[in-house]
Amino acid sequence: MEWSESHLKLREEIDAFVEAHVRPHAGAWDREERMPSEPIQALAARGYLGALISREAGGGGVDALSFGLLNEALGRGCSSLRSLVTVHSMVAHAVERWGSRALRDRWLPALARGAALGAFGLTEPQAGSDPGGIETTATERGDTLVLNGRKRWITFGEIADVFVIFLKLGGAPAAVLVPSDSPGLSRAPIRGMLGTRASMLAEITLSGCEVPRDNLLARPGFGLSHVAQSALDWGRYSVAWGSVGIAHACLDASARYAEERHQFGARLRDHQLIRAMLTEMHVQTRAAALLCWNAGRLKDQRHPSAILETSLAKYFASRTAMRAATDAVQIHGANGCSADHPVERLLRDAKIMEIIEGSSQLHQISLADHASHSSPL
Amino acid sequence: MEWSESHLKLREEIDAFVEAHVRPHAGAWDREERMPSEPIQALAARGYLGALISREAGGGGVDALSFGLLNEALGRGCSSLRSLVTVHSMVAHAVERWGSRALRDRWLPALARGAALGAFGLTEPQAGSDPGGIETTATERGDTLVLNGRKRWITFGEIADVFVIFLKLGGAPAAVLVPSDSPGLSRAPIRGMLGTRASMLAEITLSGCEVPRDNLLARPGFGLSHVAQSALDWGRYSVAWGSVGIAHACLDASARYAEERHQFGARLRDHQLIRAMLTEMHVQTRAAALLCWNAGRLKDQRHPSAILETSLAKYFASRTAMRAATDAVQIHGANGCSADHPVERLLRDAKIMEIIEGSSQLHQISLADHASHSSPL
Amino acid sequence: MEWSESHLKLREEIDAFVEAHVRPHAGAWDREERMPSEPIQALAARGYLGALISREAGGGGVDALSFGLLNEALGRGCSSLRSLVTVHSMVAHAVERWGSRALRDRWLPALARGAALGAFGLTEPQAGSDPGGIETTATERGDTLVLNGRKRWITFGEIADVFVIFLKLGGAPAAVLVPSDSPGLSRAPIRGMLGTRASMLAEITLSGCEVPRDNLLARPGFGLSHVAQSALDWGRYSVAWGSVGIAHACLDASARYAEERHQFGARLRDHQLIRAMLTEMHVQTRAAALLCWNAGRLKDQRHPSAILETSLAKYFASRTAMRAATDAVQIHGANGCSADHPVERLLRDAKIMEIIEGSSQLHQISLADHASHSSPL
Amino acid sequence: MEWSESHLKLREEIDAFVEAHVRPHAGAWDREERMPSEPIQALAARGYLGALISREAGGGGVDALSFGLLNEALGRGCSSLRSLVTVHSMVAHAVERWGSRALRDRWLPALARGAALGAFGLTEPQAGSDPGGIETTATERGDTLVLNGRKRWITFGEIADVFVIFLKLGGAPAAVLVPSDSPGLSRAPIRGMLGTRASMLAEITLSGCEVPRDNLLARPGFGLSHVAQSALDWGRYSVAWGSVGIAHACLDASARYAEERHQFGARLRDHQLIRAMLTEMHVQTRAAALLCWNAGRLKDQRHPSAILETSLAKYFASRTAMRAATDAVQIHGANGCSADHPVERLLRDAKIMEIIEGSSQLHQISLADHASHSSPL
Repeated sequence: MEWSESHLKLREEIDAFVEAHVRPHAGAWDREERMPSEPIQALAARGYLGALISREAGGGGVDALSFGLLNEALGRGCSSLRSLVTVHSMVAHAVERWGSRALRDRWLPALARGAALGAFGLTEPQAGSDPGGIETTATERGDTLVLNGRKRWITFGEIADVFVIFLKLGGAPAAVLVPSDSPGLSRAPIRGMLGTRASMLAEITLSGCEVPRDNLLARPGFGLSHVAQSALDWGRYSVAWGSVGIAHACLDASARYAEERHQFGARLRDHQLIRAMLTEMHVQTRAAALLCWNAGRLKDQRHPSAILETSLAKYFASRTAMRAATDAVQIHGANGCSADHPVERLLRDAKIMEIIEGSSQLHQISLADHASHSSPL
Repeated sequence: MEWSESHLKLREEIDAFVEAHVRPHAGAWDREERMPSEPIQALAARGYLGALISREAGGGGVDALSFGLLNEALGRGCSSLRSLVTVHSMVAHAVERWGSRALRDRWLPALARGAALGAFGLTEPQAGSDPGGIETTATERGDTLVLNGRKRWITFGEIADVFVIFLKLGGAPAAVLVPSDSPGLSRAPIRGMLGTRASMLAEITLSGCEVPRDNLLARPGFGLSHVAQSALDWGRYSVAWGSVGIAHACLDASARYAEERHQFGARLRDHQLIRAMLTEMHVQTRAAALLCWNAGRLKDQRHPSAILETSLAKYFASRTAMRAATDAVQIHGANGCSADHPVERLLRDAKIMEIIEGSSQLHQISLADHASHSSPL
Repeated sequence: MEWSESHLKLREEIDAFVEAHVRPHAGAWDREERMPSEPIQALAARGYLGALISREAGGGGVDALSFGLLNEALGRGCSSLRSLVTVHSMVAHAVERWGSRALRDRWLPALARGAALGAFGLTEPQAGSDPGGIETTATERGDTLVLNGRKRWITFGEIADVFVIFLKLGGAPAAVLVPSDSPGLSRAPIRGMLGTRASMLAEITLSGCEVPRDNLLARPGFGLSHVAQSALDWGRYSVAWGSVGIAHACLDASARYAEERHQFGARLRDHQLIRAMLTEMHVQTRAAALLCWNAGRLKDQRHPSAILETSLAKYFASRTAMRAATDAVQIHGANGCSADHPVERLLRDAKIMEIIEGSSQLHQISLADHASHSSPL
Repeated sequence: MEWSESHLKLREEIDAFVEAHVRPHAGAWDREERMPSEPIQALAARGYLGALISREAGGGGVDALSFGLLNEALGRGCSSLRSLVTVHSMVAHAVERWGSRALRDRWLPALARGAALGAFGLTEPQAGSDPGGIETTATERGDTLVLNGRKRWITFGEIADVFVIFLKLGGAPAAVLVPSDSPGLSRAPIRGMLGTRASMLAEITLSGCEVPRDNLLARPGFGLSHVAQSALDWGRYSVAWGSVGIAHACLDASARYAEERHQFGARLRDHQLIRAMLTEMHVQTRAAALLCWNAGRLKDQRHPSAILETSLAKYFASRTAMRAATDAVQIHGANGCSADHPVERLLRDAKIMEIIEGSSQLHQISLADHASHSSPL
């Protein structure tokens, strides 16, 4: 990978942030199944929540590689907090790219500052990897849209101030910006999840929920193909780097543990089987990072294959995280299953990565055409 | 596999027990991180806690295959409860095989009835897979042994009435039966574990803890090579079958979910990638069950290779459970990460199986000689 | 596994046969890409070619488990020779089960003695795993059937005396016994294959080839669903056990090599990574053998699930053979890639096992329903 | 990956070369187990044999990335021919870096033009991955060194004009340049290998073989730590890229076959299981290419971690090649096992990659420290 001086500087800055504000608390947030406001405010204060928003609109206007480094570092510290950056950035991106001037003026400054938090309302109880199956609808009543339906597994849905809701409007897929205080919107927290337990998941119920028709993002019909797809592209990119972060954290923890722990009269790291696991973890994580870096580079070049390369990176990185975490717990033995070490949380979080923003199976199917028509070089 | 009529009957009985008393509650026990007394009493009432104890001593005197079926069914329902049967049976076995007549008379009837619960005190903070590294000691003071040390990760240590404690006595490995009300014994619960969260783990501290010298099991010097090894053999056997149960439960849940859930206009089970996962889960689980069955058969024949075949079965079955659970969560998608479905718990429990009673790495190393000298037929 | 005294005796006998007549020559047969007549006559002399044929019809009438042991031992020695037993037995089975009295009288004694060799004519250039796609046809001309088409990858097709040819007769799948000297039948050897290089593969061309209508096996329409399926069941069973034999041979060779070879000042087998490979090879081979044994047992009981259990065993065993052989070559290093050691041939042969008699992918798809509806116990 | 304009141009040129002179003939060379002189002369004519030699010494003086592209393209076409570039370049590198002025003047121009072919004499019958175990010796007799020993598995040893022979001189590891016509040097071809069958392997016997003492490369004692290590670094780099080439060729062949072949009424590539294999092949190959590219980039920067990154790339790429080839044959079914398609050769060649220039196991052990101390970013 090639990093510019400014990237390296950013990396140091973010690493310090994560070390100070995130990593030491991630276990507690996980146990309590909630994200306190302090780290969110800290993120906002550094401008990380608005990183992807253009400078004109009050954001950081960072390049894709910088955004990647941010997600990697956060993923190393706490995948729940990283997932806030993911969905918030997806919403910000959707508003900036597909919103009307009025919507942009209304929301971007607040999103950029982190004064408002955004959440992404695509998934439904019966529509996960297959967004074509969404059943939420909007009907027009004058200048108002009336929304009915249920959105499930909405990351940070419990505290978000505004949602991008995907629905059918006259049968056509559409995306609508829905403030959380809209009449008819209610939310119920979802607890007891396997991983990213502090990501404030909620189920959103829309019962005759009313929003102005002007809150439409792009035209009806473009909701999935344009709004969702371009936001999901950033979502996958964020999750890909976040997964690298998980694998990286597993490697760090495992290398340290293998250095300190003794067994059968030798340091753990002097056992060949442990060495083989460390090597594999490192090689896979390096490969995942390179795939993410490559996707980011193409994004920054506005290369036409950037989207597919991002999917590819997400597919590889999420599997790498799961594999790394599985081995990391194994290296740690009973200690690795306890709250005294981060790896059991990393394992639970890693599993989520193989499912969200397009499951591994979806990618296995969808990437095959790309595989057939593009050179691996 | 070949099951006798009585095995099939037992299986039905145990399945009904698990269906009525275990499976519906396992999620709650996991969330609350404790095992209530009801299921323990129910186990006791059926004689399952004393299953391995001879009839002469008041137990069930069941054969190894029957004990396997019990563990498989319990593993399907709740690995925490299964782990009680594991450690309780290990203790009962140790007392019956290595205890003096007085110790047997004193403890076996209570252990058989479940009036006393036993726990296995081998692991220490610095000695997991390598029991040679234990640091707990006993010194003789007249007819009394004075114990000092710490035991960690002791399954059901929080509520056990009696422990088999492994320690060094005059430098030689020894095993001592230690009632939980012995002066100088204290215990602290361990919470926040990845899996088998209702198994009432505790850390046991022995500070000048006094027990009669007559509580020794076998002679000093035989503590690890005989008492621990023969008990661990049963422990591995129990965990092996329990792992089959986990994989079996994953398969059941996944097959059901794939039948009901629709995606992209088809039942999930009509997708090739899902079919391939179901097939693999079934084939591996079947293979694991056969290995366990084979080990049980050899145990019942008192075949000299029964111990190694048990290790082999544990190694394979625990990995099968982890793999099956990983795929089961994947098949379930977001639902599989939630408390609404058992598979996320099964995944967390499965990971424990790869670590306890000898980690996979330990088996990879220790079984190689067996691999080199025995026919796979 | 449970073997009767007679099975154990048979095993010894077959092992001795393989050791004397097969194993020492397998490398040469592979290099020369042909099977000489000596081993075939030796097989015939022992009655191994007629093993599956009933005693009434002059065969050995052995049970499925005995047939399994034969195939395992031959697979350990030479998969090409094992494949002769496979296809010859499939043909013999088809004739005995589905042939008219006249056909049975005409062919079974010769097949039983090995005086005539049979080959199985199902696969075509455009129809491999999907037999529904066969394009060979027969048209009726009085009492004669006129055959046109091409059969490819026909094991021992180069020297077989009689073929079971699958074709469409009036649009319906049919199976016809076709002597190799039938007018209009020609054959071309296929050389340069990856594995089972001495299996005398041929392409069979039928150009207006004439056979009596009485040579039909079963009625038209039953050709695939009955004749092919029941023969393929035995074919899969044979390949499954043959695959166990490959894995077994890999284990034997690897254990021996790891014992003798030194590296970095230690025997190869004292390196943990080598130990882990040996253990895995042994465990997987044992599991594969148990699955085959279980299928054989069910076959001998005429259990309704015997066919599915056979497919399952074939799927697992063929993958096990490939994995074992891949590791065996790795353990042997450069030596393992040379003709001085059998493992490079075993690797090439193993890969064939994942493809013939139903590829792994086909099994992954077809076994899923079985997985969903049967207990792994 | 980022490629300069000149890299892209070179790639086109090499691709055209491989397409014209290599790929169409690779199958024949493999079958005949020999490399004819035409392709070697063609390589020489293009300057590819001297690519790594500095321009001052008459070579191409290409950068590491260009050398990588050359090896990737050749690996796609024929791993045997690629292996000539590997060992020839290793020898040329050793001479240029460690040879005296006289040796350089004598040999580099001929090596650069391909007028002389070099081979690398490290491995011995008892010393493969562990070069410390070499037993070949030299004794000094005036200005002459007298060599005794055997070198095995010497790529292109059958036709090389000059060898770098590693041996012990007064107990210290040393490297000596040995022309093939030195008295006392004899060679025997090795045939019947699993893969890279046209790489003209030989066993070299040195029986009182005499060379001038001036033929020493570097000082005695530096033979392994400096001469061998720096040459092996280039060897691993070449094999890594060659492995990417194998995987790339597997992907190309599989994508084409899946496009054309029909099964069960659909193109092969419309089956999910095939799609998943294509995706995985592509993703892994891409990751391998990125790791190689990264190593090359660091080499061109003379970065201190370039050597370790090269090892890492070799480890990953060789495994990728094996995995890709295994799946490629599977996708092709019976056709993939035949000489009509390149994939069976690619599989046999791929297995070699996991063994030469440091086996996967060696890398698993040796890279662990690097894994523990370097960031995956």
